[in-house]
Amino acid sequence: MATIAELVEDRTVDGVFAVARKRRLTTSRGKPYLALELVDPSGRIEGRVWDDVELLDRRFAEGDAVRVLGRVERFDGRLQLAVRTVEAADADPAALAPTLRRDADELEGFLEFLAAEVAHPGLAGIVSGILAEPEVRDGMRLLPAAGADGHHGYAGGLLEHTVGVATLCRETGQLHPRLRADLLLAGALLHDVGRVRELGRGPAFRPTPEGALLGHVQLGVRLVDERANVLDSAARAELLHAIAAHHDRSAARTAEAAVLYHANQLDAQAATRSVGAD
Amino acid sequence: MATIAELVEDRTVDGVFAVARKRRLTTSRGKPYLALELVDPSGRIEGRVWDDVELLDRRFAEGDAVRVLGRVERFDGRLQLAVRTVEAADADPAALAPTLRRDADELEGFLEFLAAEVAHPGLAGIVSGILAEPEVRDGMRLLPAAGADGHHGYAGGLLEHTVGVATLCRETGQLHPRLRADLLLAGALLHDVGRVRELGRGPAFRPTPEGALLGHVQLGVRLVDERANVLDSAARAELLHAIAAHHDRSAARTAEAAVLYHANQLDAQAATRSVGAD
Amino acid sequence: MATIAELVEDRTVDGVFAVARKRRLTTSRGKPYLALELVDPSGRIEGRVWDDVELLDRRFAEGDAVRVLGRVERFDGRLQLAVRTVEAADADPAALAPTLRRDADELEGFLEFLAAEVAHPGLAGIVSGILAEPEVRDGMRLLPAAGADGHHGYAGGLLEHTVGVATLCRETGQLHPRLRADLLLAGALLHDVGRVRELGRGPAFRPTPEGALLGHVQLGVRLVDERANVLDSAARAELLHAIAAHHDRSAARTAEAAVLYHANQLDAQAATRSVGAD
Amino acid sequence: MATIAELVEDRTVDGVFAVARKRRLTTSRGKPYLALELVDPSGRIEGRVWDDVELLDRRFAEGDAVRVLGRVERFDGRLQLAVRTVEAADADPAALAPTLRRDADELEGFLEFLAAEVAHPGLAGIVSGILAEPEVRDGMRLLPAAGADGHHGYAGGLLEHTVGVATLCRETGQLHPRLRADLLLAGALLHDVGRVRELGRGPAFRPTPEGALLGHVQLGVRLVDERANVLDSAARAELLHAIAAHHDRSAARTAEAAVLYHANQLDAQAATRSVGAD
Amino acid sequence: MATIAELVEDRTVDGVFAVARKRRLTTSRGKPYLALELVDPSGRIEGRVWDDVELLDRRFAEGDAVRVLGRVERFDGRLQLAVRTVEAADADPAALAPTLRRDADELEGFLEFLAAEVAHPGLAGIVSGILAEPEVRDGMRLLPAAGADGHHGYAGGLLEHTVGVATLCRETGQLHPRLRADLLLAGALLHDVGRVRELGRGPAFRPTPEGALLGHVQLGVRLVDERANVLDSAARAELLHAIAAHHDRSAARTAEAAVLYHANQLDAQAATRSVGAD
Amino acid sequence: MATIAELVEDRTVDGVFAVARKRRLTTSRGKPYLALELVDPSGRIEGRVWDDVELLDRRFAEGDAVRVLGRVERFDGRLQLAVRTVEAADADPAALAPTLRRDADELEGFLEFLAAEVAHPGLAGIVSGILAEPEVRDGMRLLPAAGADGHHGYAGGLLEHTVGVATLCRETGQLHPRLRADLLLAGALLHDVGRVRELGRGPAFRPTPEGALLGHVQLGVRLVDERANVLDSAARAELLHAIAAHHDRSAARTAEAAVLYHANQLDAQAATRSVGAD
Repeated sequence: MATIAELVEDRTVDGVFAVARKRRLTTSRGKPYLALELVDPSGRIEGRVWDDVELLDRRFAEGDAVRVLGRVERFDGRLQLAVRTVEAADADPAALAPTLRRDADELEGFLEFLAAEVAHPGLAGIVSGILAEPEVRDGMRLLPAAGADGHHGYAGGLLEHTVGVATLCRETGQLHPRLRADLLLAGALLHDVGRVRELGRGPAFRPTPEGALLGHVQLGVRLVDERANVLDSAARAELLHAIAAHHDRSAARTAEAAVLYHANQLDAQAATRSVGAD
Repeated sequence: MATIAELVEDRTVDGVFAVARKRRLTTSRGKPYLALELVDPSGRIEGRVWDDVELLDRRFAEGDAVRVLGRVERFDGRLQLAVRTVEAADADPAALAPTLRRDADELEGFLEFLAAEVAHPGLAGIVSGILAEPEVRDGMRLLPAAGADGHHGYAGGLLEHTVGVATLCRETGQLHPRLRADLLLAGALLHDVGRVRELGRGPAFRPTPEGALLGHVQLGVRLVDERANVLDSAARAELLHAIAAHHDRSAARTAEAAVLYHANQLDAQAATRSVGAD
Repeated sequence: MATIAELVEDRTVDGVFAVARKRRLTTSRGKPYLALELVDPSGRIEGRVWDDVELLDRRFAEGDAVRVLGRVERFDGRLQLAVRTVEAADADPAALAPTLRRDADELEGFLEFLAAEVAHPGLAGIVSGILAEPEVRDGMRLLPAAGADGHHGYAGGLLEHTVGVATLCRETGQLHPRLRADLLLAGALLHDVGRVRELGRGPAFRPTPEGALLGHVQLGVRLVDERANVLDSAARAELLHAIAAHHDRSAARTAEAAVLYHANQLDAQAATRSVGAD
Repeated sequence: MATIAELVEDRTVDGVFAVARKRRLTTSRGKPYLALELVDPSGRIEGRVWDDVELLDRRFAEGDAVRVLGRVERFDGRLQLAVRTVEAADADPAALAPTLRRDADELEGFLEFLAAEVAHPGLAGIVSGILAEPEVRDGMRLLPAAGADGHHGYAGGLLEHTVGVATLCRETGQLHPRLRADLLLAGALLHDVGRVRELGRGPAFRPTPEGALLGHVQLGVRLVDERANVLDSAARAELLHAIAAHHDRSAARTAEAAVLYHANQLDAQAATRSVGAD
Repeated sequence: MATIAELVEDRTVDGVFAVARKRRLTTSRGKPYLALELVDPSGRIEGRVWDDVELLDRRFAEGDAVRVLGRVERFDGRLQLAVRTVEAADADPAALAPTLRRDADELEGFLEFLAAEVAHPGLAGIVSGILAEPEVRDGMRLLPAAGADGHHGYAGGLLEHTVGVATLCRETGQLHPRLRADLLLAGALLHDVGRVRELGRGPAFRPTPEGALLGHVQLGVRLVDERANVLDSAARAELLHAIAAHHDRSAARTAEAAVLYHANQLDAQAATRSVGAD
Repeated sequence: MATIAELVEDRTVDGVFAVARKRRLTTSRGKPYLALELVDPSGRIEGRVWDDVELLDRRFAEGDAVRVLGRVERFDGRLQLAVRTVEAADADPAALAPTLRRDADELEGFLEFLAAEVAHPGLAGIVSGILAEPEVRDGMRLLPAAGADGHHGYAGGLLEHTVGVATLCRETGQLHPRLRADLLLAGALLHDVGRVRELGRGPAFRPTPEGALLGHVQLGVRLVDERANVLDSAARAELLHAIAAHHDRSAARTAEAAVLYHANQLDAQAATRSVGAD
């Protein structure tokens, strides 16, 4: 069975995919159809169900794994799957979400190495404790860094992005001895940890109700705050401030928070901006 | 003779300093006085000439090295030098400008190492050629990264900042194999090279007339452009674009230019933002 | 003894005040002096100690209550106190901070009335519980709404502002039945509760170290979050979101959060903007 | 005959509606059709004429009342009316415009009550005089507050919004005795009076030619200015300034104008922002 | 007697000037003095009264013409007049306000020529009528274009600026035949006419109370509106719109209003920006 | 054969046009079609190829001249050409690009007149030299001022716009004798000269690869810089600065650069903004 990355125009497809988005729309003449976003670990493709809509619509929901029979066409310069028939498939939809190109075990090794670089005992304990929690550890491997449509938008993107930002912050700490390197590195390792409570599992990675209202910054502050009572009040406030300010250009009040803001931006842009003029 | 870093309140001083700023002002009652900024490699201090102003004013100009006799007082929380007498000193004023804490030879070694990492023959030749020109090589050691009052505001700050930005960009190239690492690193190594034509030598580091109008971005593009004709037109445009866009958040049209923008910001903020809440 | 509100130009003063600000400065000719901000419940006045500076400086610190002998002069259109002598006074400095014109007991009654209007049992319990905590109850009467220099910048300003915003939100809930009136009113009553951890006591009302880094929004979210676990997750997120977004024009994602933002702005502007063209 | 609020998917409809928008469009294959927005006092629905377009197009114009025979379908999640036939109806189109849920007579009573609260004789006379003019009195009941697509976008929305803003301003005047309550309340009652000259009658509520160029702020200033010559020049300028600045965050130069700006924003957001996360 | 333009450092002065600003200040040691801005048709100079302050202060008010005896000194790079004695002078202060370098009669001739270029009878009548009113005609010669500290900040600056903007708009009308040249030229000739009601006479050119609240844009719209009833409603709205939008970059809804905005900016910048790098 | 300006609804067309844009799209039901933008010297029209798409698609490319047989229809209020058949035509596509209404020879005469007004020998030589280069001279007549979709979006628009801006700047130089009229006029004549290297020839006027990255400002600075070495360093920097800053509101550091910015804006808005309310 073909993977999405292998699909070619004008070929028939028989494959098992996960349904990342499912919407029921109507053509300009009023005929209903289904607009799908289908994914597997190798990539994404738009799908359309034009016929037997009532029947097929009932067979699956957004987030399900499905077996699809159809034909690949080109629409507005991109491939699209015209679905002839679709049925529920006996597969784990989360395992079908697009995933990272790099080796997750290796990235987790980097993450542990970076966490071990935090010398301050209190910060080191908090960082290693949080990263070892199953909710966080699993979330790092299963979630994207910023939703399905953002940068690092695949399962494990959160792990990859966290390693990237922490690597840049560690380097910056070495270049600038005036900075509090432990605070900076701890902030980097924990800055996006709120994503594990903001985003649901793949393939849809939809925000949880709480995530939609509070966002990953607020949720990350709460998660770290609950575990940071071993720190004295000043160190705790510094760590929470760096996490709280990492999305807001003008909020940083310390050098470490300002550096974290730019390291986060840098890694996100490096992952998404087009290589060559856009 | 005392260095500026060693000065203590309520002590008499006899020292040789360079005059980074000199202005003739008048008190609110109309009495003229001289307001000075005195520097040596260890730091900066404000100076005031309250008496014999006509006489002493004629003895030296901004940028000169001077021998000063006076007394250290505290004004608005900071030390200030009440100058009793001052005369021209037989010393090189540029050698008296504040300088970097780190070892310049070591930084130059890092710079050469980073330049040697550029694998693309055309880019490598341009980078190593420009960095080897006496104007650039000397400027890196003698100039600040962004004027006397900006980040890395001491002789050699330009060298230190260039190494910092290039180190971060090299790291980013390794984290993100999709990026064109050679282009990114070459852009980082050359991004501030226009400073050598924008800024005059210390201790004042005043903009040259050309620098005041065209700025270091434009002057850097010109300098690199004149030496980049060995590149094909596309590679040349990519390199010039990265340099041209490095100060303007919304100008970047390539991933490499966007990364360079944030690496430059990151290093500047890491050097200047207050450690602890401001 | 005179209160600050009664001071008149060219008169001698003998009074007991609190020192809200104390800085040691130097005149343009290098002579040290003390710049003070003196307060009592009736208002504020700048003070200057020109003579015997060394001696008098040692007698009191910022935040102390002092007995002052001096003379009222006019400087740049405003009254100023030329202090001849000053000594520590046996009085409670917090009791000398400027305070509200309105009756605090009456305002507290309004606050209780408004809290009793929250019908939703979970929200009602949280609101009345938090407002009854001694830290909050005392903070409401002893703190300003936004620091000594902000709107409602006197002891009890926090209470007055909270009543103002909650009154406007209650009115809005009645005008717009589509809104969730309980959520809106609860958010209004708790929106600035983080001030009790952000600001120190008068007369200086300086931010605490934690307050300087985390700010009252973050501290308020934490305080409410810790007490909101009786709510289901959705209701808790809605309440925390309204508090988290109340200072950021573009952060509101619900009608109630958007209304709270504008009610807060409205009450602050009503308290501070000049009546007549500025 | 059914009202729009009662329409259900997959049912045939025979009803009398007003045509709020009418555009002749073409499908992507070039076939012409009519896109309509149909309204009655209970709501709005999109309509489409797919067949007999030439014939039916000639039977009615935008703004007419029509009798429609068709079928309700679901398109992109919303109901839509597929029109089979349509003909002019003998009904008052303005009476078919969507209208407010609340009782207009009661709102007018509130408006009169609020106007009677203005104590300053000059301001009271101007306010009650203007509100009693037939053009204004009718406009309040027949126009929306900000066009058909804005907040309070139905006949009488202008009345409802004016009552809302004035109620909030009256409350603010009581909370803040320093404000000039009469000026604030008069400004609130008259702030949107220019809408009666900016917007045409329903169901389309299209801007008049003058309204498109000058806008309701300028037209309101003119209308009030022409009637304000009983005031002394200062009071007149204050009232006109509050009206002139009510849409521009940075224009207010008095506390009352700043409060009016935020009260207007508050009421508009309360009416339009989604209840629950958007 | 010397004019201000002729004053030289270290010389005694005996001259007649107008007092454009007068403030009573106090030195940092509490001694009162007078800070003056003195003007005559040739320029401006700061003045200081250090001695006999009580006596001399009573002799004149801001806006008066005075005879001054003093000495020219240099303060912070600029000339300043140390006033020894001052007394009321028998001269017209308005005639002593700084005035334009160019010939006012010639400029008025240009203005009439430009007004005669408006071909549309209605617009031509309004323009020539308004420009012929004594209030406007005198204001053009006696007022600056934007207050004493703005561009064209001298008597007659309003006339000079109006001629400049109208000349540029006439040229633009010829370059772009698609524009409605009459509307554009009429708008340019009348765009700043509200200044005659916003600003008081020299030498102080203080805003009138009405001007401080309503500003010249609103006052100009009112003035033109009152005289524009000979135009049909559409033409009147177009003219008023161009005047109303001339200070707000985003308000223009017609090409002519957008052109007027930029012509106004262009002429103001041409008059004020430094020639050579600032 | 008909020109585009003469096309009428519901008529058959047989004409020769250039293909300014060609995209292959798919209807919502998946059927491919071609979306074209066809131009001739009289105007532009959208074209659609619905049938025989595979066959006709191979017959021509974007930028070609084609002979088209089809029918004019109305779509969404605008005319559109339903293409029945299309074939390559033996015509110069560049000659078919939309062109200016005004006489190009006459405009070139104005350009030469304006260039001859530059009195400064160095500037005059550079301006006349650059304008006489075939690349520039031809580009002025063949290119638009800002791409096919920008202001003056037709062949020769660059010439027309350059004359417009230079005329306004010459007028400004006469109104403001304080300005350096030669510098201003030279800057105006050369400000958009980089367009000749940024944009490809019509009918598509696509950016060159270099143009997409460096933009016309950077390319213009380079072009002028290479030819400006006869000037002394200060004059050269002033000229380059005016060109470099002409698109950036906040970059201008001289009066002449600020004037050029606004003259450029003024002429662009005069050419594009709708005449009458939009």
